[in-house]
Amino acid sequence: MESARIVKIKEPLEIQKIKTPQPKGSQVLIKVQSSGVCHSDIHLWEGGYEGPGGQLMKATDRGVKYPLTPGHEVAGIIDNIGEGVEGFSKNEKVLVFPWIGEGLCPACRVGEENLCDKPRSLGVYNDGGYSDYLLVPSYKYLVKIGDMDTDTSAPLSCSALTAYGAVKNTQLNPNDNVVIVGAGGLGLMAIQLAKAVSGARIIAMDIDDDKLRIAKQNGADLTINSKKEDSVKAVIELTDKLGADAVIDFVNATKTVETNMQLLRRRARLVLVGLFGGALQLNLVTMPTRAYKIIGSYTGSMNDLVELVSLAKRGIIKPVISNKFRLDQATEGLQMLKEGKIVGRGIINP
Amino acid sequence: MESARIVKIKEPLEIQKIKTPQPKGSQVLIKVQSSGVCHSDIHLWEGGYEGPGGQLMKATDRGVKYPLTPGHEVAGIIDNIGEGVEGFSKNEKVLVFPWIGEGLCPACRVGEENLCDKPRSLGVYNDGGYSDYLLVPSYKYLVKIGDMDTDTSAPLSCSALTAYGAVKNTQLNPNDNVVIVGAGGLGLMAIQLAKAVSGARIIAMDIDDDKLRIAKQNGADLTINSKKEDSVKAVIELTDKLGADAVIDFVNATKTVETNMQLLRRRARLVLVGLFGGALQLNLVTMPTRAYKIIGSYTGSMNDLVELVSLAKRGIIKPVISNKFRLDQATEGLQMLKEGKIVGRGIINP
Amino acid sequence: MESARIVKIKEPLEIQKIKTPQPKGSQVLIKVQSSGVCHSDIHLWEGGYEGPGGQLMKATDRGVKYPLTPGHEVAGIIDNIGEGVEGFSKNEKVLVFPWIGEGLCPACRVGEENLCDKPRSLGVYNDGGYSDYLLVPSYKYLVKIGDMDTDTSAPLSCSALTAYGAVKNTQLNPNDNVVIVGAGGLGLMAIQLAKAVSGARIIAMDIDDDKLRIAKQNGADLTINSKKEDSVKAVIELTDKLGADAVIDFVNATKTVETNMQLLRRRARLVLVGLFGGALQLNLVTMPTRAYKIIGSYTGSMNDLVELVSLAKRGIIKPVISNKFRLDQATEGLQMLKEGKIVGRGIINP
Amino acid sequence: MESARIVKIKEPLEIQKIKTPQPKGSQVLIKVQSSGVCHSDIHLWEGGYEGPGGQLMKATDRGVKYPLTPGHEVAGIIDNIGEGVEGFSKNEKVLVFPWIGEGLCPACRVGEENLCDKPRSLGVYNDGGYSDYLLVPSYKYLVKIGDMDTDTSAPLSCSALTAYGAVKNTQLNPNDNVVIVGAGGLGLMAIQLAKAVSGARIIAMDIDDDKLRIAKQNGADLTINSKKEDSVKAVIELTDKLGADAVIDFVNATKTVETNMQLLRRRARLVLVGLFGGALQLNLVTMPTRAYKIIGSYTGSMNDLVELVSLAKRGIIKPVISNKFRLDQATEGLQMLKEGKIVGRGIINP
Repeated sequence: MESARIVKIKEPLEIQKIKTPQPKGSQVLIKVQSSGVCHSDIHLWEGGYEGPGGQLMKATDRGVKYPLTPGHEVAGIIDNIGEGVEGFSKNEKVLVFPWIGEGLCPACRVGEENLCDKPRSLGVYNDGGYSDYLLVPSYKYLVKIGDMDTDTSAPLSCSALTAYGAVKNTQLNPNDNVVIVGAGGLGLMAIQLAKAVSGARIIAMDIDDDKLRIAKQNGADLTINSKKEDSVKAVIELTDKLGADAVIDFVNATKTVETNMQLLRRRARLVLVGLFGGALQLNLVTMPTRAYKIIGSYTGSMNDLVELVSLAKRGIIKPVISNKFRLDQATEGLQMLKEGKIVGRGIINP
Repeated sequence: MESARIVKIKEPLEIQKIKTPQPKGSQVLIKVQSSGVCHSDIHLWEGGYEGPGGQLMKATDRGVKYPLTPGHEVAGIIDNIGEGVEGFSKNEKVLVFPWIGEGLCPACRVGEENLCDKPRSLGVYNDGGYSDYLLVPSYKYLVKIGDMDTDTSAPLSCSALTAYGAVKNTQLNPNDNVVIVGAGGLGLMAIQLAKAVSGARIIAMDIDDDKLRIAKQNGADLTINSKKEDSVKAVIELTDKLGADAVIDFVNATKTVETNMQLLRRRARLVLVGLFGGALQLNLVTMPTRAYKIIGSYTGSMNDLVELVSLAKRGIIKPVISNKFRLDQATEGLQMLKEGKIVGRGIINP
Repeated sequence: MESARIVKIKEPLEIQKIKTPQPKGSQVLIKVQSSGVCHSDIHLWEGGYEGPGGQLMKATDRGVKYPLTPGHEVAGIIDNIGEGVEGFSKNEKVLVFPWIGEGLCPACRVGEENLCDKPRSLGVYNDGGYSDYLLVPSYKYLVKIGDMDTDTSAPLSCSALTAYGAVKNTQLNPNDNVVIVGAGGLGLMAIQLAKAVSGARIIAMDIDDDKLRIAKQNGADLTINSKKEDSVKAVIELTDKLGADAVIDFVNATKTVETNMQLLRRRARLVLVGLFGGALQLNLVTMPTRAYKIIGSYTGSMNDLVELVSLAKRGIIKPVISNKFRLDQATEGLQMLKEGKIVGRGIINP
Repeated sequence: MESARIVKIKEPLEIQKIKTPQPKGSQVLIKVQSSGVCHSDIHLWEGGYEGPGGQLMKATDRGVKYPLTPGHEVAGIIDNIGEGVEGFSKNEKVLVFPWIGEGLCPACRVGEENLCDKPRSLGVYNDGGYSDYLLVPSYKYLVKIGDMDTDTSAPLSCSALTAYGAVKNTQLNPNDNVVIVGAGGLGLMAIQLAKAVSGARIIAMDIDDDKLRIAKQNGADLTINSKKEDSVKAVIELTDKLGADAVIDFVNATKTVETNMQLLRRRARLVLVGLFGGALQLNLVTMPTRAYKIIGSYTGSMNDLVELVSLAKRGIIKPVISNKFRLDQATEGLQMLKEGKIVGRGIINP
């Protein structure tokens, strides 16, 4: 098989030929049809995230090993199955849940493998979907997608799943005002999802009027351009001077979070999702006196993914695909995403 | 009636004579027998809390008005009742729930008046229990204590309630390791409560060996003196190199919280309770990648207080009372508490 | 003031003149504009419910006293307020929360007054809204409805609230199949609500094709006419032979519940709402082996009502009003409802 | 290997020699040291449960196949491991989680394999632990027990787990009165567990004074002999005439559940656990008007089992072992259990 791999950080990905594996036991071999290009692939490519003070938090310190085939948003067709596979057969169209855990920790035991102590996620800690074939360790990580398109299905397993996990962590109800910071791919999906599974009033915040217009089309009740108006004042006014019941931040940079802290109503939940990084000077006394909750949200569970596929099958949510790449254009895809040239989601079709 | 009041911040409290009110409607007049002296009374006395950078966060900015009769831990006997009072009669021994809300906000509607948008807490926003009489706005804020002693009952409504709220916010289960930072009055109560309502393994942390010894007698499974040993290393070792599932910080100062952040297992809950203050440099990327939750915890609800009284009646929890003061010794009580000379709880008997 | 009252059970309601009360303390006097006619008013009128074996479960045994002014779905204008009322003023348009509790029990303490041990509901245990004026014991039971119409708002406080409480008790998620039994007023509202706050797939079941057609327009994904087809077989087929994850029964008669029990997937929730009555022969062993939950659902909380008003204000849910009556036509309204001649909701305009 | 198998229902178990399997992939071969004898083994032996009207609900209708090696409470030593096993090695002492699911259903996806749509439980749907060796399909179903005794550990995986699942389903808090019906093995364990993880007041009910005496030693606050006193009257009196907040029934027979229904406070939870069987004439109208919840509780999850082992390791709960049998005495063990001659738990040591 052929894979586009990160061999040296920041260098172009290399196309390498690797022996196509033979699935054993509960393993399944997928013929990859669509593989999403995600912001976190850029972090892998660049070797890490920005921590407080601007220093690099190295991916290798978290257990990432190079060379690595990235790609954790994978949809395709079952090419072959191990002898212990049940409920799936060759030629079925499936979506892969990539957030695989080791299976023994408390998170894994309650089906939250995405939060495993010792994660083995495909495309992060193990080779992923920038490849024509992908070996999945168990059929339990597959979701049948039936007639759905693989291109629009692939981003469900990270982009949409991360948005869904964040929305769930926010625990919205119909009387809540929720501010969604960042109206890019994840933000738009979060708006669709908050609309679909809660009755909350949604305030979209971004610095780009075009994105805010699309946010409104996707279900935002109100929008704020934080470049043009005083976003704190705007939220306070929109919420009867009380502040937002919840804020979901898909940027999670020093500047956005500093603003977020001023938007919060007493008892508010602030859900941090983005990986932009930096640090916040957190006022400690206000945490108890204002009863704030700051919640880090990381992707979602296998069960969440099944729920998402159910919503997508019925057309309740609609991922937006904008760019398509061949496998040998993987570097180009990453570069375009980094430069902000991809609206919606870029997909590699190996 | 006579009340010990804060007239000028940092000045000795003044004993003032005020006309004893006549309860109307659902109001109840309490003859105060025991009134606890709490750390947050010191903050009222000093005019506020320390914010980030050391500047004062003024109490008056939060709506506190002077002169003020402090005292929010009040137990006594019903002296008189309004014509609309039901279920209570004169001479009954009761404990007062002081965390009264305005009644219309989302917190109040679900019985979390302690987290009201516009709080009216007794002893904070309205006159409290450093007084021989206290007017309570409704019988709905009273809990019958039967044969229980008023001195040991009074601290249930703040000291124990704050510990209980924190333990509940931590959502412990029997397989969790929880670190309780600060083995003073609240910490000890939290240890008793975590023991009583969860099966978690409790690690008490303090800088005082005497307190840690008492912590062990109160139910701590393990103790760490963070002055004598490397507390991060100690917790990591005690938790199979995974970190604590939860940390409750009853100090909540820059130094303790900086350490706390290094103790956390993936998915851990950090519950901030203390009002020591200062700021934390929060690494933003680790919030989602490690799926941390930072939860501010502020006292507890009326329902929590009823549960606490039930536990105390059966001897399952035992507040420790160490010092008693007359009403005219209120300033002395505050001063001793500030200087760390009170172990357990100081009580004013007007 | 003039009220239409049940003086003798099963006899026509009498119009009685009563002295208009003067609100005191936190009381509010409402000029009633719209008062919904509810099925449970029929039960009050007839003196009770049908229990197992067909015998009458008397309303008086539950604490109801006659003569009684029924009417628990009340919207109107504030006519006068007591001296302790805050946040409300004369001439404001409001909806009344009628499910008032005594305030001291565990349900009341967590804001579930509708489930109080000793309920004082308006129109059931105290005089209600079949009257030109209604005295509400506290402003805390009022919700401002702004520009909303009182006729469409009134049914929110029982018809819609009961549907909402049931939907919440069902704890739906987007991958669930939920069967809603009975596509009358409550069933239709439950369909709208399940659609608005969950992403579940909704199967509406009724014996009337017209109602099922309207159910589909209101958001049902699938419909079953249980008179024309084998409803058990139909549900089993629609759910991959697994059964429904949840069933909400707005009829709750022997026959419907017997069928419901055959529709349930392992782990399913069966939510019983209707008051039709009778008995079920419950197979005890299947409860643990199939891990079923049977949940009785009774109206909803004040907080739920505020959420409903928020949904209605934004047009996300829409109660259907079909018949209007004058106060002296109250008996006619009850009679028509009993005979099944009211589709949607009948409203008395005093 | 040698196994004691049910070949014909109601006939003595046969000792059969079967080829000892070789573990592959993630499989683990256990050298069984202790295998508990459980009431549900009797049901397998007798071919089923009693349904309403006394007719047999056949085990084969639920998918059980004979011949079958029963035994789902198994502790032993790892004899051999498949090549894909991680985190476990030969000679480690382990407890087996027997409630294995197929892995694809909603229950399995959230770690509730015990409630799987298509269960594969060991000792029920697959061969179990009445045998000197047991093949476990994955190391993920093992819990290390360290120094703990295998005899006292074995019953954790069903007897204690069922009690724990029931206690969790009851959602007790410190102000609740909970009635535990049946003070046999499960009831006693439930008393210990309710004591360990909630602060509820426990009322034990049985018809045997000896058992009630032991119940009190294990943590029951109050006891009722329902043969000697009017149990309904007794509970009503012990609960200020309000009724119990929760009842857990480890018998679950017509007679006990009929009584239970009269013990319930409004909003009460009735948790049905036992498999005695029969039917209840359920009054349908009282379900909504009284807001009752009837909850079927079936064993517990893998995560629950890990929590139990943690509690047992620290001595917080203590299973009672009373009788030991050789493998060829399996029939005798079942017979004695059926005749009520085993107090605590009988264990087979193959």
